[in-house]
Amino acid sequence: MVRLEYSIELAYQIADSRCDFIFMIHAAQTAQQRIVSESLEILPALESDLHTDPASRSRILRLTANAGPLTLRYRATVDVQHHVDPPEQVPEIAVRALPAAVLPFLVPSRYCQSDRLQRLALKEFGALRQGYGRAQTICEWVNQRVTFQSNSSTAETSALDTLIDEAGVCRDFAHLMIALCRAVNLPARFVTGIDYGADPALGPLDFHAYVEVFLGRRWYLFDPSGNAIPMGFVRMATGRDAADCAFATMFGSIDSWQPVIHIEALPDDSGRLTLPSHVAGALSTDAEAG
Amino acid sequence: MVRLEYSIELAYQIADSRCDFIFMIHAAQTAQQRIVSESLEILPALESDLHTDPASRSRILRLTANAGPLTLRYRATVDVQHHVDPPEQVPEIAVRALPAAVLPFLVPSRYCQSDRLQRLALKEFGALRQGYGRAQTICEWVNQRVTFQSNSSTAETSALDTLIDEAGVCRDFAHLMIALCRAVNLPARFVTGIDYGADPALGPLDFHAYVEVFLGRRWYLFDPSGNAIPMGFVRMATGRDAADCAFATMFGSIDSWQPVIHIEALPDDSGRLTLPSHVAGALSTDAEAG
Amino acid sequence: MVRLEYSIELAYQIADSRCDFIFMIHAAQTAQQRIVSESLEILPALESDLHTDPASRSRILRLTANAGPLTLRYRATVDVQHHVDPPEQVPEIAVRALPAAVLPFLVPSRYCQSDRLQRLALKEFGALRQGYGRAQTICEWVNQRVTFQSNSSTAETSALDTLIDEAGVCRDFAHLMIALCRAVNLPARFVTGIDYGADPALGPLDFHAYVEVFLGRRWYLFDPSGNAIPMGFVRMATGRDAADCAFATMFGSIDSWQPVIHIEALPDDSGRLTLPSHVAGALSTDAEAG
Amino acid sequence: MVRLEYSIELAYQIADSRCDFIFMIHAAQTAQQRIVSESLEILPALESDLHTDPASRSRILRLTANAGPLTLRYRATVDVQHHVDPPEQVPEIAVRALPAAVLPFLVPSRYCQSDRLQRLALKEFGALRQGYGRAQTICEWVNQRVTFQSNSSTAETSALDTLIDEAGVCRDFAHLMIALCRAVNLPARFVTGIDYGADPALGPLDFHAYVEVFLGRRWYLFDPSGNAIPMGFVRMATGRDAADCAFATMFGSIDSWQPVIHIEALPDDSGRLTLPSHVAGALSTDAEAG
Repeated sequence: MVRLEYSIELAYQIADSRCDFIFMIHAAQTAQQRIVSESLEILPALESDLHTDPASRSRILRLTANAGPLTLRYRATVDVQHHVDPPEQVPEIAVRALPAAVLPFLVPSRYCQSDRLQRLALKEFGALRQGYGRAQTICEWVNQRVTFQSNSSTAETSALDTLIDEAGVCRDFAHLMIALCRAVNLPARFVTGIDYGADPALGPLDFHAYVEVFLGRRWYLFDPSGNAIPMGFVRMATGRDAADCAFATMFGSIDSWQPVIHIEALPDDSGRLTLPSHVAGALSTDAEAG
Repeated sequence: MVRLEYSIELAYQIADSRCDFIFMIHAAQTAQQRIVSESLEILPALESDLHTDPASRSRILRLTANAGPLTLRYRATVDVQHHVDPPEQVPEIAVRALPAAVLPFLVPSRYCQSDRLQRLALKEFGALRQGYGRAQTICEWVNQRVTFQSNSSTAETSALDTLIDEAGVCRDFAHLMIALCRAVNLPARFVTGIDYGADPALGPLDFHAYVEVFLGRRWYLFDPSGNAIPMGFVRMATGRDAADCAFATMFGSIDSWQPVIHIEALPDDSGRLTLPSHVAGALSTDAEAG
Repeated sequence: MVRLEYSIELAYQIADSRCDFIFMIHAAQTAQQRIVSESLEILPALESDLHTDPASRSRILRLTANAGPLTLRYRATVDVQHHVDPPEQVPEIAVRALPAAVLPFLVPSRYCQSDRLQRLALKEFGALRQGYGRAQTICEWVNQRVTFQSNSSTAETSALDTLIDEAGVCRDFAHLMIALCRAVNLPARFVTGIDYGADPALGPLDFHAYVEVFLGRRWYLFDPSGNAIPMGFVRMATGRDAADCAFATMFGSIDSWQPVIHIEALPDDSGRLTLPSHVAGALSTDAEAG
Repeated sequence: MVRLEYSIELAYQIADSRCDFIFMIHAAQTAQQRIVSESLEILPALESDLHTDPASRSRILRLTANAGPLTLRYRATVDVQHHVDPPEQVPEIAVRALPAAVLPFLVPSRYCQSDRLQRLALKEFGALRQGYGRAQTICEWVNQRVTFQSNSSTAETSALDTLIDEAGVCRDFAHLMIALCRAVNLPARFVTGIDYGADPALGPLDFHAYVEVFLGRRWYLFDPSGNAIPMGFVRMATGRDAADCAFATMFGSIDSWQPVIHIEALPDDSGRLTLPSHVAGALSTDAEAG
């Protein structure tokens, strides 16, 4: 078990009156990720609505703000108890036997046009032995093919663009891996989080995006951009792709500042500090139900 | 109330053993669409699994078939009791106040890249009075701009393609209308169905695709391809776009034949026959919960 | 006749040895644009090759530079004697009768996918009376539909993107107008130049891009971004689209600075100063031969 | 030397009066391809204009036809005397030293978006030894990656689509190879022709498309779709990509039939019959001037 505390500060300057905001910055509560404590501060004080999506368990915060400055400060301490399996014991599941809630993650989405990649994916990965190892191979293929490069992509960049351009940021790696997985009938979804242990050389800490593939009876973590320690991820939102998981969506004329994000590992209740580390097993933080 | 009976016959020749199929051909059961009776015949006889998605109430049939021929015959009699509102009394709802279940229909999807169309949509429709009439204007704009033309699009054609090419079939009209609605923050979704009263000059009866926009507290029907009588639609699947609603998805080496579809209006239990007709009001067959 | 003097300073820092450069910054010499004087300074002094393309009369400067700094300073004084016709007397020419050298400007190119825009262009412009006025209508349509916005596009942005995004810079306006013209069989080409009289509020003077359409027996100027006085354009390169006309193409690992550009109007040999002004007529600076 | 005779029959039914046509079906006359005899029959008899493009030596036939049927029958006997070099002696040429007429074949075009493929091409082919062998490696890479499949692409399919879809016809293979060559600064162009020895299993004889890369002082032939014997190609049109080389472009409401094409090898003047065969050398049929 690792105990992680993260904080996010978001700042806006609003020009219009009555602008709506949607935020997805809360830690998700799953069987493996327990929220020890959390706090949200909104300045100026405003009524807000927090909804937990029953399927994804993403938490969606909505509020309406008037002209002027707006600041949000969210802080959470979470205990992440990873489920770890021996990779060779994690099988693929036939489409026929997948939980129905998993089916939407087989079809193409805005940034993951898996329908266009069936031939390529079949050629590259179709003959591989089915199971966790096949998803891992796709993850490594994406990691090796694509070069991490800040500002090499935009909000419109999709998996097809990344396949052609061979450059991107974590979100782009995730979209390409998801599209390739779906193209070989592996359900895959997009996860946003904060990652402990990011390389400070990459600049100020930013949101991270990674992938979960449904295998056996669980969603397993993959980090195709390969910059991080999967054990150090705190999960926020989950969805088909980035379109479902924007940390902030604004409706109106609004200026925004770069988010300020911190994360650290804390001792648990018994005073023991476990630092996230790379592990060889198949990591999961969400079971079938989600 | 209209009582409609439709039948669908699907025929396949399967080359591989153990091919999975997903079908979405069952009539949806909603507050306004009641299933009077239905039957499903699978030849050869096969075990199958029928699941109702709790959010969309689409019914998803899955089965695994072996090499050889496969035929499905589905037949349903449904009573559709449309909810009709005076258009001028159907308001738009601020993002802040939308039911949470509606939020996924605000974001871009595979075939409805609303993120790319915000400037265009704002220029064309941003200044219009909010409400049902604005959605109706978008519907008419799409109908006038796009020409109905069989075989002018493919399974990969998206709303952006249709905006450029200005030609398509019902699915393409629907995708463009959905993308434009979302671009002005109107939640919109894709619906597949069978429509009573299709022009026989357009060839054998095919599946229909149309649009629902969330306004007030309900999803309202729009038919941007304008070929049909909305009162004559029987609803099957609902989703973000065509990716969620394929009538058949096949996994394996399979030949398929053109579906054979019939629909007719029947007298109700009291012996009264009501034919679908064009009505001036705002039609809805699904309330907020969906 | 207007006499204009412009200067361009380009500065690079080269990391590799033996990097090739292609520049297209020289004033074109046409029947209507006479070069009074020009000078080119290369620091450090380097051998270079200057070639005039016989078809476009674009001048192409090539050189190979070694690691270290590289600076180019080009300066030209040109007399532009516009050919002006009454717009209503400038006809369209049937494909059959077009000079053969003009035919390449009828087909789609990298950034001007006219093949995709035939239906749209026919619907919008197909019924208009043929002639200069039709090209002018396309120019105005683009100008009204697209919003000028710095940094709203990239080097990969094409006419289709601009049609969807409805924003761009002069190059994007030009590509969309060219694509629409070709879609109704009007030969159209891309021109780069320096424009006298640019609004200083738009920032430091930059290269300009505009359009020429072949009508009657000449290429006529159109400025779809509408920021400039066509009489004040000095023509540099001409081609199918921006791919043919890059002011600098670099082969190697090279850092570059923002070009420094100046232009001013000078008195002619008789001491008379004519400032470029907006004129009502159809302006041309290149005849059939080009 | 091989002597080949080919014939093309094109048939149309024209609805409008005064429809313009552009045809590019004539054999090109180059230093290596000599026209022994040719004939053109147009029914009904019509005035036509035949123009040889000075740069590409493509021959462009234009005519205007009235409503009713139109048939063209073209027949040519050509002697092709291939220039053959030892592949290892054919070098690449620095951009600085390329003939100016070759430069347009370095930039991206409608179907060959080489600008998008620079990173991929550099990674795959950047470290290879320069020369004919590098172009050959690109040819083989395309041949192995893409699957030949009739009707898998449309007139809008570009090199980027083919890279993603991994299927296409000869034109698509050619576009992808051209885009990759240009991305590593190898000038490459698109050639249409008739190929002797096509596999009859692929259906009725159709036009062929292949690639020429400028190396040393000549354009060398490559056939990335790999279905044919390069010695058996008769060259018709040459251009940046398919947009420049359409065998027929029609302006108006016209129905067309599938072209009927024949080709055979003939004995030369001395009565000796040489059948095209696969040769190990680097084949060229066009020198620097073109």
